[in-house]
Amino acid sequence: MALELTFVPALLAILVIAGLGRLLSKGLRQPAIFGELLLGMIFVSFIILTGVAETGISDILTDSAETGISDMASIGILLLLFSTGLGLNFEEFKRLEVASSIVAVSGVILPFVLGYLAAIFFGFSHLIAVFVGVALVATSIGVGASILTELRMLRTRLGTLIMGAAVIDDVIAVVMMSIFISVVVMEVIPLIEISLLILFTVLFFLVSLTLGIDLFRKLSEKFTIGRESLLLLGLVIILTFSLIAEEIGLAMIIGAFVAGLVVGQSHFARRLREHVSLIGGSFFIPIFFVWMGMKFDVSAFTSVGLFAGVLVIVAIIGKVVGCSLGAKASKFSGRESFAVGIAMMPRAGVELILIKLGLDHGIIGADIASAILVMVIITTFITPPSLWKALRMIKSNKEV
Amino acid sequence: MALELTFVPALLAILVIAGLGRLLSKGLRQPAIFGELLLGMIFVSFIILTGVAETGISDILTDSAETGISDMASIGILLLLFSTGLGLNFEEFKRLEVASSIVAVSGVILPFVLGYLAAIFFGFSHLIAVFVGVALVATSIGVGASILTELRMLRTRLGTLIMGAAVIDDVIAVVMMSIFISVVVMEVIPLIEISLLILFTVLFFLVSLTLGIDLFRKLSEKFTIGRESLLLLGLVIILTFSLIAEEIGLAMIIGAFVAGLVVGQSHFARRLREHVSLIGGSFFIPIFFVWMGMKFDVSAFTSVGLFAGVLVIVAIIGKVVGCSLGAKASKFSGRESFAVGIAMMPRAGVELILIKLGLDHGIIGADIASAILVMVIITTFITPPSLWKALRMIKSNKEV
Repeated sequence: MALELTFVPALLAILVIAGLGRLLSKGLRQPAIFGELLLGMIFVSFIILTGVAETGISDILTDSAETGISDMASIGILLLLFSTGLGLNFEEFKRLEVASSIVAVSGVILPFVLGYLAAIFFGFSHLIAVFVGVALVATSIGVGASILTELRMLRTRLGTLIMGAAVIDDVIAVVMMSIFISVVVMEVIPLIEISLLILFTVLFFLVSLTLGIDLFRKLSEKFTIGRESLLLLGLVIILTFSLIAEEIGLAMIIGAFVAGLVVGQSHFARRLREHVSLIGGSFFIPIFFVWMGMKFDVSAFTSVGLFAGVLVIVAIIGKVVGCSLGAKASKFSGRESFAVGIAMMPRAGVELILIKLGLDHGIIGADIASAILVMVIITTFITPPSLWKALRMIKSNKEV
Repeated sequence: MALELTFVPALLAILVIAGLGRLLSKGLRQPAIFGELLLGMIFVSFIILTGVAETGISDILTDSAETGISDMASIGILLLLFSTGLGLNFEEFKRLEVASSIVAVSGVILPFVLGYLAAIFFGFSHLIAVFVGVALVATSIGVGASILTELRMLRTRLGTLIMGAAVIDDVIAVVMMSIFISVVVMEVIPLIEISLLILFTVLFFLVSLTLGIDLFRKLSEKFTIGRESLLLLGLVIILTFSLIAEEIGLAMIIGAFVAGLVVGQSHFARRLREHVSLIGGSFFIPIFFVWMGMKFDVSAFTSVGLFAGVLVIVAIIGKVVGCSLGAKASKFSGRESFAVGIAMMPRAGVELILIKLGLDHGIIGADIASAILVMVIITTFITPPSLWKALRMIKSNKEV
């Protein structure tokens, strides 16, 4: 390979792409995430087309550069979810608990059923059909969180509903994936594991959001703390909660989000939020989204067939209709419900793990894998502009 | 190995150690760096003594965790040097150019000569004696920079002199090491390479500090820029200058320092300094110092002999006396000159590369290597408390 970027040049390239992406977004009046994802993907397509890389970004990075960048990106998504939790209105969050659950559940059922039926319709086996259904379930929380933050709509009822639903959705998706993998790969119905996963999840949320909140509130009343030490403490809290979540079997980002909710109810909240949003927004979070754009495997489009097209449509309809209905049932306006549906549309996270497992265990072939990949890429890319537009319309209507 | 920490747990452990280190420093009225280095080293000694790890921190980290942490640490030292350059008084820096050079040169000659003579006295060959001399030359810039920043003394004449001298010292050390390695290992006197290195170094400083400063000053007058984008831009500039410096053959930190000087003369300076000090001080820089403490090879002490003791004394006297004399000759007070000498005392950086090369090429044996390591560890550890005390005395005298 001619080009082999080590860590610092690779990081520089990504930061430059992030900066250009933001300029592009500004020019096109799009959210920052749009330009970051897009230029990340364009950059990789470009180096593949020009023959600099063969299959993707990994070809032009040294292994250790790739590790370093991907670690930075992980911190980015943790910081994003933390500051989202930190910025939420917790009272509203609790009030909307039921509504969020309804949105999440209806946004899980419809995509699953539609995905399953589409696969059956195309003549795939029941096993593959279930796999496809599961792959349509999980929402990518980062996209909505990033856009709500940029529009300063996190503290609105709508923003709270979206984040609550997205988090519950992610928990459901993890549980479904665990069940599916255990049943298919290990051929057991993991009743105990799943019960424990659910039990610990509930305990984690309960303890954090009661005792945890009390504890941090009291600590924050007792101690004053300098800005550097405060941010250091914040990072320790984020990583601790993330590791607990991972230990339970959830995604780390769920832990980071809960950490944000917990710290958000203390006196540290306002200052910490400002600091975390600076360190995250200027460095780690852009790295995450550019890296995500770079990791999209565009070659999936080369072998795309009719099934992929149907899957994309089913994925969009499933979430938009499912979640909108849920929001409507919880007495949100039509326009708001539609925005909720759009916010829940992007996939990217659990699916990518699922695809890898599916391929490794021979459950699916390259056709299904690339159809799901195409679905992930398209839903992720159409969300920022659509959600941006939908939310701005709601916002300006309210302000008028 | 029983324990294998992946990236996030390893990062958490390091941040916790950094936080505890700061508390310890505060309790002992020491600079933050002291506790960070100390607890980093104690942690590693502890896991080795308890048998959790065999030889060092690498034993309990996965390879990719180690890569990730060490990347974070590199960003830390770059941010530290950048914000140091950013915080310096540039006019003073230029005025003190000659004085800094005198301090640097006298602080290079005396340690080199003393180290050489000590080795000869102990019966080592001329080759080894020159090696030992070279190993005593380079100052570790980070220690002084960190303490001057914490005491808010960067903008004083004294702080400016110290940083100027430390940077020149580092350039001299790199040149000396390049010559030594080429002559001994490749058996050529690399006249052209060394001329080019010096030429490009001079050009880099000249162009950056004239055209570069003009350019950024004009840019900063033309554009207004949000705080996140400003920090992103700052990071791009830091990494660009660091890579240029590396390309020339200098240490990356020299590039980061020059970037700080350049940006420091623009309208971006004040805001950027605040942001960089936050992101650096709360995250990257503590990681750097804890990691540095963790990397100290304490086992060097087990085989320590008389020569190591002499080397430590020679290393301390060489820098303190050499640099003090240089500062005194430049009309600094006795107390100030002494503080300059102490600030230039710590080693850690070039020496570690030198040791590795020396061992790889069979120039030195384990005895010399561990004697130099002991010298690095001791000079690094005694500097923070001594410099802290010396600078505070000067500061409080002035304030009275």
